[in-house]
Order: sequence, then C-alpha cells, then structure tokens
Amino acid sequence: MTDERIAALSSVYRNTLLDDVIPFWQTNSPDREYGGFFTFLDRGGQRYGDDKPIWLQGRAAWMFSALYRAVERKPEWLALARQGCEFLDRYGFDTAGKMYFCVTREGRPLRMRRYYFSEVFGVLAFAGLAAATGEEAPRRRAVELYQSLLKALKTPGIITSKIDERTRPQKGLSPLMCLLNVSEAMLEIDPTGPYERVIDDCAEEIFSDFVKPDEGCVLESVGPRGERVEGPDGRVMNPGHAIECAWFLLDVARRRKDSDLARRALPIIDMSLEHGWDPEYGGLLYFVDIEGKPATQLEHDMKLWWPHNEALIALAMAYEETREPRYADWFMRVHEWSFRHFGDPEYGEWFGYLHRDGSVSTTLKGGMWKGAFHLPRCLLLCWKSIARMRGSNDAAPQDQD
Amino acid sequence: MTDERIAALSSVYRNTLLDDVIPFWQTNSPDREYGGFFTFLDRGGQRYGDDKPIWLQGRAAWMFSALYRAVERKPEWLALARQGCEFLDRYGFDTAGKMYFCVTREGRPLRMRRYYFSEVFGVLAFAGLAAATGEEAPRRRAVELYQSLLKALKTPGIITSKIDERTRPQKGLSPLMCLLNVSEAMLEIDPTGPYERVIDDCAEEIFSDFVKPDEGCVLESVGPRGERVEGPDGRVMNPGHAIECAWFLLDVARRRKDSDLARRALPIIDMSLEHGWDPEYGGLLYFVDIEGKPATQLEHDMKLWWPHNEALIALAMAYEETREPRYADWFMRVHEWSFRHFGDPEYGEWFGYLHRDGSVSTTLKGGMWKGAFHLPRCLLLCWKSIARMRGSNDAAPQDQD
Repeated sequence: MTDERIAALSSVYRNTLLDDVIPFWQTNSPDREYGGFFTFLDRGGQRYGDDKPIWLQGRAAWMFSALYRAVERKPEWLALARQGCEFLDRYGFDTAGKMYFCVTREGRPLRMRRYYFSEVFGVLAFAGLAAATGEEAPRRRAVELYQSLLKALKTPGIITSKIDERTRPQKGLSPLMCLLNVSEAMLEIDPTGPYERVIDDCAEEIFSDFVKPDEGCVLESVGPRGERVEGPDGRVMNPGHAIECAWFLLDVARRRKDSDLARRALPIIDMSLEHGWDPEYGGLLYFVDIEGKPATQLEHDMKLWWPHNEALIALAMAYEETREPRYADWFMRVHEWSFRHFGDPEYGEWFGYLHRDGSVSTTLKGGMWKGAFHLPRCLLLCWKSIARMRGSNDAAPQDQD
Repeated sequence: MTDERIAALSSVYRNTLLDDVIPFWQTNSPDREYGGFFTFLDRGGQRYGDDKPIWLQGRAAWMFSALYRAVERKPEWLALARQGCEFLDRYGFDTAGKMYFCVTREGRPLRMRRYYFSEVFGVLAFAGLAAATGEEAPRRRAVELYQSLLKALKTPGIITSKIDERTRPQKGLSPLMCLLNVSEAMLEIDPTGPYERVIDDCAEEIFSDFVKPDEGCVLESVGPRGERVEGPDGRVMNPGHAIECAWFLLDVARRRKDSDLARRALPIIDMSLEHGWDPEYGGLLYFVDIEGKPATQLEHDMKLWWPHNEALIALAMAYEETREPRYADWFMRVHEWSFRHFGDPEYGEWFGYLHRDGSVSTTLKGGMWKGAFHLPRCLLLCWKSIARMRGSNDAAPQDQD
C-alpha cells in the first residue's frame, strides 16, 4: 500500500509538469528561426543570451521525446525532439566527429571541451527520438555516437586529465554514471548491443571504487583502484550526484527485477542524505567534505535545484522498491522543502540557485546548465512512480497504445 | 589635512598586519621540510591539503620581500622570500620554461594551465627578492621571466582561448592589468627595460577598450577593439577586479606625478562602487551584470575578501591623491564592513568567503587562491598611504637606511 501522503501528490507532479514547467520551456525555449533551443532565460522566460549549450540541446530533445512516449503522443513534442536532434546533427559536431560544448545561436562553434559529456546527451537525444518514432536514422546516429563515447571513455589517453596522471592518477564518478545511464537508454533501441555488460561493469566499478560503506560516503574522485586522493579533492562528496547515481542503479534493478542490485544501491541514498541534508536550513548542500574539513568550492553550501530533483526520483524509487516508511518520510521532507523554496508560482518553472538559507541567489530559469531537463524529468519520473505504486494506469500511456 | 577618522586607523592597519595576519602565515604556511608554502589552511591554521598552488608561492614570496623592504629588515622575512623563490626555481617550471599552476608538496607537477598568471606572480617574487637584496641571480630570473610573459601575452596564438576565436574573438582585462602591475615592479630592478612603454600601452588599451564611461562600467571581456561581446559574458563586471585595476593605475600616476592619469583612473573607483556595493547588505558583490540581467556565476553575490582589500587600497590612494571627502567616507564604509564581517578575532587572519548577507560560508583561511597576499598587501599599502598623508616617517623605513 502506498503512503497516502505520497499518493496524494500524483496530481501535483502531473500538473506541475504539464501545466507549468513544460509550457515554460515550450513557449520560451525553441528557436523557431535557427532551430535548437534557447536556454539563457530569465525569471519570466525572456532571453538574456543567445548561445546554445550543447548539453542542453540534447537534454531538451530527450525530454520532449520522453513526454511523447510516456505522457501523450503530441505532435508538437515530437517536433521539438526532432528540432533538437536536427540542430545537434547539423551544428553539434566538429569535423572529427567530436561534439562541441557550446555554439552560437546560428550554430557556429564557440567552445570545445576535452570531455565527452555532450556525447552523453547526444546519445540520449538520438536514442529518445529513435524510440519515439522507430526511425532508423536517429537509431543509427545513437549507436554510432554511443560507440564513440564508449571508445573515448575506455581508451586511455583520449580524454586527458587536468591533473598530471603521472603524479596523481585518478578517475571520476561522472563518466561511469553517465555510461550506465545511456547504456540503459540504448537497450530500448538496440537490443543486441553490449549494453548489459557495460552496465554490469559500470555498476561493479562504482560499488568497488567509489562507494565507501565504511566511511559512509560516495566519493567523486578516487585513485585508479579506489584509493583516497590527497587533499580536499579526495574528500569531496556531491550528495546530489551520488543520489542520482543511486536511482540510475535502482532503475536498472527495477527493469531487471534484480533485488540484490537494489539492495546495494539503497545505502547510497542514505549516505547522500546523511552527508548532504543541511541540519540547519534544510535542503541538500552542493558539496561536502566527508571529514568536515573546509570545502573549497565557493558554491559548496548553496542549494541547487537539480540535486533536489535527483533526490525526489531516488526516494520515490526507493519507496516503490522497499515500502520502507523512512523513504516516504524523506520523500515528503525533500518535496516540501523543494516546492516551497524553488517554486515560483508567479512565473512558473523553478529557481535554480538558492543561498544556503533557502533565499533566491539568482532568478534565472535557464542558463548554461539549467534547461528543460532535471525538473521535468523529476516530475515525470515521480509521477510515474507514484502512479505505479497506486496501481493506476496513468503510469505508462505508451503501453496502452 | 588627513581625515581624522582615517588617520586614526594607521595603527589598526599596522597592528593587524604585524600582530595578526603575518604571524598567522609565518607560523602555519612555510614548509620547513620541502620548501615553499602550504596554503590549504583551516580557520586555526591547520592544514587540510598539502598541494602547493604556484600563484600563491610567488605571491607569498613577494609579500615577505615587501615586508622586508617596507617595514623592517627582518632576516626571517628575507629567508621566507628566498624560500618561495627557491621552490619556484626548483619546481615551478616545466622543461619548456612554462610555469605550472599547481604542484605537490614535494614539487611534483600536478596541473599546467594555458594561461600565464603563474609567470605574473613568479616575476613579482623574483623581482621582489632582487629589490630586497640587490642580488643579480633573482634579478636576471625576473627579467627573463618577464620577457617570456610579455612574449606570451603579445604573440597571437601562444595563449589559446577557450572560446573559438574565429567565431567570437575577445580579450580580457586581466592580462593587461597584470602586465601593467608587473612592469611597475620591474622598473625598480631594471631601469633600462621597456617597462614605461609597456605601462603606457596597457593603460591606453584599458581606457580605450575596457572602461566604458558612457555605460558607467568596466568590462571583463570585450571584442578586439572594445566591442560588446554577445550574452552574459559581454555584460560581466567584476567590481573588485576593476577597482584593483584603478589602484594599479593610481600607483603609476603617483610615481610619475601624472595627475592626468590619476584623473582618468579615479572614475573606475566610482563605477566599481556604483555597480558593486550591495545596497541591501553592504559589501562588494563578486560579479554583476551591468544591465541587471541574471549573473551566471553561482558565486556572483558572495562577498569575497580580496575585492574588499583592493577597494581599501584604491580608496586610500584616491583620498591621498584628491582629498575628496567622498573617498574618505567610502574608505570608512568599506573598512568598517570588511573588518566586522571578514575579521576573526579568535584565530586571526580573515575569513575569505561570505554569503551575500555577510555570514561566513566557509571558515578556511587559505586555499588554492587565498594565501599571504591580498590582505597583508592591503594592510601594508593602506598603512603606508595613511602614514604618507599624516606626513609621518613610519611610511618607508627603507628610505631611512
């Protein structure tokens, strides 16, 4: 039986998604002239910059195809997913096939970074469009891009580290999480690919090298075999990131009906809340030093929207998996804090950046990192999780077609 | 006649420098085993990391030679200046002669960056030691390093931009400011060098391309001929940085007795305070969008220690130059806000990072960017400026030798 408090929130998640957040992006974000999406949007949705961050082009395209698949087959959502993929196709890649980090409104290259995160969201965009339409072109694009991502992440030397690897070899949690999550997405459109094995490998490496049950934490950076890295970098925990990792794993566990994997992933949620939840003001801190030493990121104690989105997804999934009351209690606590502090009833969407005390630091609704992604994904996934718990058939319209 | 309120502060600046701030660094920062300086120091001066940021090695070395020259010929200060220069000499350079950004405690390379700011502080360190001792070795090192810095900054293509220069060519205020300031330092040890001309060129480019009197602002980034750059990057003002630029110019003007240059530099101070001073909580904001659009830096409304140090220096110099009461009033306002909010009577030194409302965000006293530099430099320069205004001969002990 579902916790009644959570069951009652189903319509809140649905309505916030469909009547508030998606309309904000659908109205203000698409560039009808040059394609793709504007993301530098102020509180009311007015543009304060024209550049087009590539991550957010892919993320928005994925989001609109997810809505099309999971909520309703609206032609305008599919058209927006297509618009994002077309912009990426046309302007997202350099001549060597590596994806840019940011381009101008017209698609001219602005910034290339050494990382492959643009590729992560590119794969999600093309795979989402392929899954929504059954078309071969985006499917092939997704497979090719996945292969180049996998190659980049697994071939030493392709991604160079900022830190001299001879002096201090280290590796990060992000690439593993991303690879696990995109592999999960690829399974849907390419059942014969290597994805299950990649997922297993990523999960094993995360558990063996980054999750530290004895220290009650998940580290962002470790040595090649999970060793502690010297100084503050070696003690950094990003609770929102760790809790996102937890639900990526729970998502795999649910599909596979792998309760052992779920059982291993759940403590990550507890560790994230233990380290991350601010006992004084509530909300999730952005970065924490696991030994309580000074955090070096200037924004360490700010409250960002996305860790709260990830926490809500993780807690909904944890409660759905276990029905343990503490996950329902935590879900309600995070829900109440988040909607109260991030919500903007006057203009819609959420504020993204709060001070530690919950007051608004900047009123922007979109920028280089914030677009049509974390919040709508959270609203959609929590709505669907709650609907499944209630046994309601508003969970998955695509299954009813 | 000096404003009496300011004259009375002479001993506050002297005592804070000599009885509080310098002892903090002198006790906790030097690495007696491997040389150089630790900078990752917590509230009480305990280490939370061993790495050695190269900027701060050079800055601390400069600071100790400045104390030796301007306050007292203490052998331990000279020894620390030498210790910093020796560490840089031994571990600060790669085989091509470019300086690292960060090395390990033992001096092994950790991070190389594309910029040449390590060289800026390297020049200051060697030039300071040369000026303090009259020795030829550091003098030659400073001259060589200055030449490689000048070449890097003036030869297109040596420093590559993060932003594609074909799409959006732009240039920053920082390199010009730095070059102007190190040229001023080089004059003292190499009177026959090209420094006056470089200073003139830097000042002209700053005034023609970055200072925008009609818009009442100083921009951090502009196009090649001072054009506005698209989006938020083109509207960013860093008030602490601009006000530091102002006193670099006033410093040149005072040496040259160039009242025209001073007259042109003074409005930068007014613009910085106009845009930067927080009308609600007091203190200087870190980044401001000059059109009041959303700032994109997460830390935009934090109060950092160093802009307040730069403001105090600039206002002391402006008042010394003009005796206009508004500069004395502003000096007092910034002084009171800064000492009250950044000061830590319990453990000494200043906190570095406050929330917008003036509460402490992190208690660290040193890190990757904060070391024995901005605060002691401010205390020394303000003390000396006040002393000059009072006509007191505690201003410049080196002139009495």
